[in-house]
Amino acid sequence: MIRTTLFSLLLVLLIPVHAADLRGTGDLALVIERASGSIQIIETTGNSSLGRIEGLGDLSHASAVYSRDERYAYIFGRDGGLTKVDMLTRKIVKRIMQAGNSIGGAISQDGSLVAVSNYEPGGVKIFDAATLALVADIPASYGDTKQTSKVIGLVDAPGQKFVFSLWDADEIWVADMSRPDKPSIQKFKDIGRNPYDALISPDGRYYIAGLFGEDGMALLDLWNLDAGVKRILDHYGKGEQKLPVYKMPHLEGWAMAGQYAFVPAVGRHEVLVIDTRNWSEAGRIKVHGQPIFVMARPDGRHVWVNFAIPNNDTLQVIDTQSLKIIKKLQPGKGVLHMEFEPRGEELWASIRDDDQLVVYDTESFEERVRLPANKPSGIFATVRAHKTGL
Amino acid sequence: MIRTTLFSLLLVLLIPVHAADLRGTGDLALVIERASGSIQIIETTGNSSLGRIEGLGDLSHASAVYSRDERYAYIFGRDGGLTKVDMLTRKIVKRIMQAGNSIGGAISQDGSLVAVSNYEPGGVKIFDAATLALVADIPASYGDTKQTSKVIGLVDAPGQKFVFSLWDADEIWVADMSRPDKPSIQKFKDIGRNPYDALISPDGRYYIAGLFGEDGMALLDLWNLDAGVKRILDHYGKGEQKLPVYKMPHLEGWAMAGQYAFVPAVGRHEVLVIDTRNWSEAGRIKVHGQPIFVMARPDGRHVWVNFAIPNNDTLQVIDTQSLKIIKKLQPGKGVLHMEFEPRGEELWASIRDDDQLVVYDTESFEERVRLPANKPSGIFATVRAHKTGL
Repeated sequence: MIRTTLFSLLLVLLIPVHAADLRGTGDLALVIERASGSIQIIETTGNSSLGRIEGLGDLSHASAVYSRDERYAYIFGRDGGLTKVDMLTRKIVKRIMQAGNSIGGAISQDGSLVAVSNYEPGGVKIFDAATLALVADIPASYGDTKQTSKVIGLVDAPGQKFVFSLWDADEIWVADMSRPDKPSIQKFKDIGRNPYDALISPDGRYYIAGLFGEDGMALLDLWNLDAGVKRILDHYGKGEQKLPVYKMPHLEGWAMAGQYAFVPAVGRHEVLVIDTRNWSEAGRIKVHGQPIFVMARPDGRHVWVNFAIPNNDTLQVIDTQSLKIIKKLQPGKGVLHMEFEPRGEELWASIRDDDQLVVYDTESFEERVRLPANKPSGIFATVRAHKTGL
Repeated sequence: MIRTTLFSLLLVLLIPVHAADLRGTGDLALVIERASGSIQIIETTGNSSLGRIEGLGDLSHASAVYSRDERYAYIFGRDGGLTKVDMLTRKIVKRIMQAGNSIGGAISQDGSLVAVSNYEPGGVKIFDAATLALVADIPASYGDTKQTSKVIGLVDAPGQKFVFSLWDADEIWVADMSRPDKPSIQKFKDIGRNPYDALISPDGRYYIAGLFGEDGMALLDLWNLDAGVKRILDHYGKGEQKLPVYKMPHLEGWAMAGQYAFVPAVGRHEVLVIDTRNWSEAGRIKVHGQPIFVMARPDGRHVWVNFAIPNNDTLQVIDTQSLKIIKKLQPGKGVLHMEFEPRGEELWASIRDDDQLVVYDTESFEERVRLPANKPSGIFATVRAHKTGL
């Protein structure tokens, strides 16, 4: 009896860590399954599904950021839910309801703070990345300060900063969180009517907000804050008849190649090309529909574009040297999002209405694999942990 | 007895994975300890040492690349040893002697192939990343093909390519490994005398070899191979008296900020500034000694420089807007290498003669921590898995 117990104790001590649990996290990604409030965990080396985490609430328009070790994901739900999940154990670590209506978030440069931008109540809340304890509450008060604005376009920036825009107030705020207990906020007013989304350049220097209330975009150079906000692409659609906007485009994914940046035109069947040397319009590329995501392959050679209804069954690929469309793909109905693998050799796309994920070789454009998913939308790879503004 | 056995079996089945073993790999790095033939594994979230792996042979001038999941490191030793280590279990997975004298390597875009550049016998060998089985052997034959050249400046490029330079032959070769069983090699001749090292731009487009046999550098645009190799910075030191070269500079780490690239001048107390719009010299910055590594903080705002003897106790920081030196640090004797954390908030430096690693806050320049290490040289973080050319 004693011998058996000792033997079993020995067994317990000697049992190896299960190989399936011990793995690197650099090739992982998660897929938002909005209808079921779940996320699917995938790996991009063998292109397979590893499992699913349920119970994340309303995931329409949800997005995610990663801890700096690429183990934990923070998922921002539309219902104000903030959920921290463990990509290795595939379990929820913590979940809080932090607002009534929310629209995305960011993680600080050092990974210690997670910020969420909220519609209701309008503002930004900042949490401890380890515990999800509230660290700072920044209401987006404006005018006579009795009202708060919806906040959009929240990104992280170098130097423990968060930058965001106020939809109702036409303002851009830069919050320095170097001292978490004492946020320092710099406000830029009258930046243009109704900023609807924003992006930050990959180096974290330029913050650009798209304007819904007027043509043009608002540019803030974070290296030269004293210069204030500059209007760029002013009246890019002036005098032309506007199309109804079926879906607001996203500015995430700043497509940049050499000196050019590529952004979706609101409501138009065009991708705008910006010369980043002087922020002037360098061209327009006619595309298949109203562009939603305009994303550069990591090497900047190609830009991939998806579209609003009724053209959301299509992807187009732009060559950034010739500025011409070199490929059109029709992967299925409801192409909602794309994510490149870290070094760009493959691209994942979510096909919502077909309940599928599809993987393309980005050089040959051949389809590599299809995987089932429940009404997939956003796809977020762990490589984002190492990137500014994603 | 049976009950006890069942109970112990249950225990075995229920035993949890040891928490210390299950961890993300995005915040790991390894440090080459050249004198003892070992590597130290560190993590950059808490800035601590996790352990050491011994038995890697001659690690003078050693470097490393990572598997795409950021779990495995491939270490290239000077003695021709190629060692695959597991960053999680901290064990050697496989080790082979693949040549007599070797000088660095690269991993293919998709992570399936590891390439090593050799002095003796001169050429490149390519191995299966999973097994380290030889996949292709590319002797660097030139002239009457009876001799082989030392190979330097080996980097990976998009499209499963490897690019490298032939020291003795004055050539640059581009090897397309899309079909591993049938490498396709394009050769560029008379590129300039004695290429000594090379770099590739972060987007994987421009390959630039430094020339030791003459002033100037050789530029190859991988998007336009038909244009051939172009000479840039021709005769940048013409007419000036040359200093003895105490140590060959490294071109790894291509320091780029906006339109400018920063490279070390061979044998001079200068960092050269190149305008990447036309590849002309845009300026020279006087520095403390002969620069070895010239590395940009990930946001491109600052460039850090270390130096050859007798000035290798010093680091200098250049502001890329003003092109002025804004900080001088003297961390200790024998500052051999630097590595930024993925989003640039901290920098690690190896201080060989003091047997230390030092971590700096890159915004305040405050010293954060010092850790012991055995004659540390190169520091390589797992984020390199996601980068082209590193």
